[in-house]
Amino acid sequence: MVMENTTQRIDAFLQANLDDYIAETAQLCAQPSVSAKGEGIEECADLVAKLLEQRGFCVQKFATPGNPVIVAHAEGQSERTLLFYNHYDVQPPEPLELWTSLPFEPTVRDGALYARGAADDKGEFIARLAAVDAVRAAHNGTLPCGVTFVVDGEEEIGSPNIAQFVQEHLNLLKCQGAIWEAGGIDPDGHPMLLLGVRGILYIELSVKTMKRDEHSGKAHILPNAAWRLLRALDSLKGPDERVRIPGFYDQVKPPSEIDIELLDALPDYEQFIRTKLGVREFVRGRTGKDLNRAVFEPTCNIDSITAGYQGEGPKTVIPAKATAKLDFRLVPNQDPDDVFAKVRAHLDDQGFTDVRVTRLGGAMWPAKTSSDDPLVKLTACTGEQVYSQPSLISPMIGPSSPIYAFAYPLGGIPVVTAGVGYFDNCGHAPNEHVRIKDFHNGARHIARILDGFAVLSHETE
Amino acid sequence: MVMENTTQRIDAFLQANLDDYIAETAQLCAQPSVSAKGEGIEECADLVAKLLEQRGFCVQKFATPGNPVIVAHAEGQSERTLLFYNHYDVQPPEPLELWTSLPFEPTVRDGALYARGAADDKGEFIARLAAVDAVRAAHNGTLPCGVTFVVDGEEEIGSPNIAQFVQEHLNLLKCQGAIWEAGGIDPDGHPMLLLGVRGILYIELSVKTMKRDEHSGKAHILPNAAWRLLRALDSLKGPDERVRIPGFYDQVKPPSEIDIELLDALPDYEQFIRTKLGVREFVRGRTGKDLNRAVFEPTCNIDSITAGYQGEGPKTVIPAKATAKLDFRLVPNQDPDDVFAKVRAHLDDQGFTDVRVTRLGGAMWPAKTSSDDPLVKLTACTGEQVYSQPSLISPMIGPSSPIYAFAYPLGGIPVVTAGVGYFDNCGHAPNEHVRIKDFHNGARHIARILDGFAVLSHETE
Repeated sequence: MVMENTTQRIDAFLQANLDDYIAETAQLCAQPSVSAKGEGIEECADLVAKLLEQRGFCVQKFATPGNPVIVAHAEGQSERTLLFYNHYDVQPPEPLELWTSLPFEPTVRDGALYARGAADDKGEFIARLAAVDAVRAAHNGTLPCGVTFVVDGEEEIGSPNIAQFVQEHLNLLKCQGAIWEAGGIDPDGHPMLLLGVRGILYIELSVKTMKRDEHSGKAHILPNAAWRLLRALDSLKGPDERVRIPGFYDQVKPPSEIDIELLDALPDYEQFIRTKLGVREFVRGRTGKDLNRAVFEPTCNIDSITAGYQGEGPKTVIPAKATAKLDFRLVPNQDPDDVFAKVRAHLDDQGFTDVRVTRLGGAMWPAKTSSDDPLVKLTACTGEQVYSQPSLISPMIGPSSPIYAFAYPLGGIPVVTAGVGYFDNCGHAPNEHVRIKDFHNGARHIARILDGFAVLSHETE
Repeated sequence: MVMENTTQRIDAFLQANLDDYIAETAQLCAQPSVSAKGEGIEECADLVAKLLEQRGFCVQKFATPGNPVIVAHAEGQSERTLLFYNHYDVQPPEPLELWTSLPFEPTVRDGALYARGAADDKGEFIARLAAVDAVRAAHNGTLPCGVTFVVDGEEEIGSPNIAQFVQEHLNLLKCQGAIWEAGGIDPDGHPMLLLGVRGILYIELSVKTMKRDEHSGKAHILPNAAWRLLRALDSLKGPDERVRIPGFYDQVKPPSEIDIELLDALPDYEQFIRTKLGVREFVRGRTGKDLNRAVFEPTCNIDSITAGYQGEGPKTVIPAKATAKLDFRLVPNQDPDDVFAKVRAHLDDQGFTDVRVTRLGGAMWPAKTSSDDPLVKLTACTGEQVYSQPSLISPMIGPSSPIYAFAYPLGGIPVVTAGVGYFDNCGHAPNEHVRIKDFHNGARHIARILDGFAVLSHETE
């Protein structure tokens, strides 16, 4: 699809200018932007805007109830637009003493750039800018398709405002496909392509049975909040790991045959996980590739339980209050609002009207791109060209992200990943880094997608 | 039973010398003796020994692995001996700012002596010395029965060494009955007589499913320690509050008809507890006098559960470790060692071999004196004489205390309570006090028991 001479010109451009892009990444990483602490946010947003303006993008900085969102658009030769989702905020750098070089003093050593945000997500963002530059250079200064960047300022704190923002700017964000953040390669160098994430509902259950804790010598008459909470939790999920809430599975769309083929084509991680985590038995006794398939099952996970005396040693007390935090990971086509209503109705039905249920954090919906979407094929195919390895395609992964906030409101666009990460780049941890070869290959991959996305549009329209 | 002129002489003596005994109580309370902190222990033990020596008791101070035990004996006219169990240690006085007068600067105001230990248990101990003095005065310097005092130094920290001590000194402690500490009157002025306490087994359950907590996006495959612990807890007790451990109830001796009559004669506390504690529903839906009867059922109480993230807000994590602390309150004739073995066997049978069970704190056995024992009748009858109110007899109360450590090794002796407490004396709390009228009546009651115990011996032998 991609003209051979165009590809050669893209690669030549990126090879010639690689050092400049690493320097640009270092410049962006030197600007702290810790959303959890509100540190350097405005400055970093302005720097991102400047980097985009320098490339002729039409840039807008939008205020939200939280941190600003940067949206930048450049027209292309085709009517079609490819959207990139990135974020300029980073995780807190602590503990500082574990960093070899300081987190906001970017340093190149051993073929990698070390800094907070080097990979997640500033390096990835700059690699995409490099790809834009390279594609323009290969096309005499034009872009074969339109390009829109959405650069979030709150990804590391759960993007609480992005869904609303998208809803309010549907025309501005109109596109025919999106490349999400956080792609990369697996330990064996295979490019990894993620097509779906699960949704999430996070709730707190709390029970209060008395005004205060009481002496456990009265346990024959006074109601224990811990036991009460346990009964409520027990009503939510059975020992067979099946969620007992009526209707919970009603909307579940099972994986397609292709999804299962893709899952079965992924490596068998059983021994790796057993060794790394010391797991004796997996959920439902699963082994081997069944562990991969299980991602299409929704979960009901206890994140915490707190009841009674939390100190050392014995204390004889009847807890008056008990709380548990739970998250449900939801698969297509479950809806967190619907699940929340069903949890409440179920507890009421079971007589647990005294169990309070509150939502914590923002809900997220599942999102999944069909594996036969042309963008998936383009991304997989160009990945194989760049990395000389077959692409690994995960139709669904366990965690959640706000892909749903874009995919559905923007008309069911395909959303895929392609990036600069590798398994050991210390994202969210001390000594975060991006390997220069991964940055380089990541930019080459994105440029090929950009180039192909335009051609793709002609093929499919 | 008690000769009228003897009783009159006892009362006259106590009336005449009341101020001196309050002063003696103040002297003892001025000596701190906080076992939880090891503060003033030796000094207080020596002061107790001196108070007993001054009265011609043969006093021995025994070292234990913890604090000293004082044992004092005085011969009487009869072969029979009555044993008094008291303790010289006190609860920590904190928070100090809530005391009107300082805890170790005893102060008389509004008809009461305020000090840490004024009621629990120094005032009670001195009231018993006063009773000894009064009985001697009424009997021309002799005691009608032998008297042995055991004054513990670790009652407020669970008497970890008293059972072993008794086992090693069976001859020294030989007696035909005992008056336990912590008696008194109820809110309506009825003397209260406690005949039994439950035993206790305290355990910790812990489960570890992985080396470390993991992201909850993997909950479809990774084992959650909180859910695992819940399943184990669920196997121990059903929603019907029935303990599911095989054989748990095998040794349970049901209350006798007399026990039930006594329980039914106690006040109905339902409304009082509902209001005070805000309880909507009692265990097993009990109401009214059924609440009293329930004390003869053993319990399985969750004292605490801890699993996962304990901070504010949401965190998406699969807990790798979960722990719960439980106490079982045991009724006659359950045995904490036996119950412990059954818990372990049951968990193994149910497949919970991965759930670790450890014992915390010292176990205690249940103990109960038969309500038709002559000492019970004597204590009830003399209580009615002193307080002009019928005695309330509790055949069993919910908490535990080391009565078993004396009652069984010393040959199944009867153990009852009679003392100086009332419901609002702030034991264990700031502004602990003993009302002087309660001190006075408590001494009068004990003196009558002492006097009657000797006569009782002639009647029953």
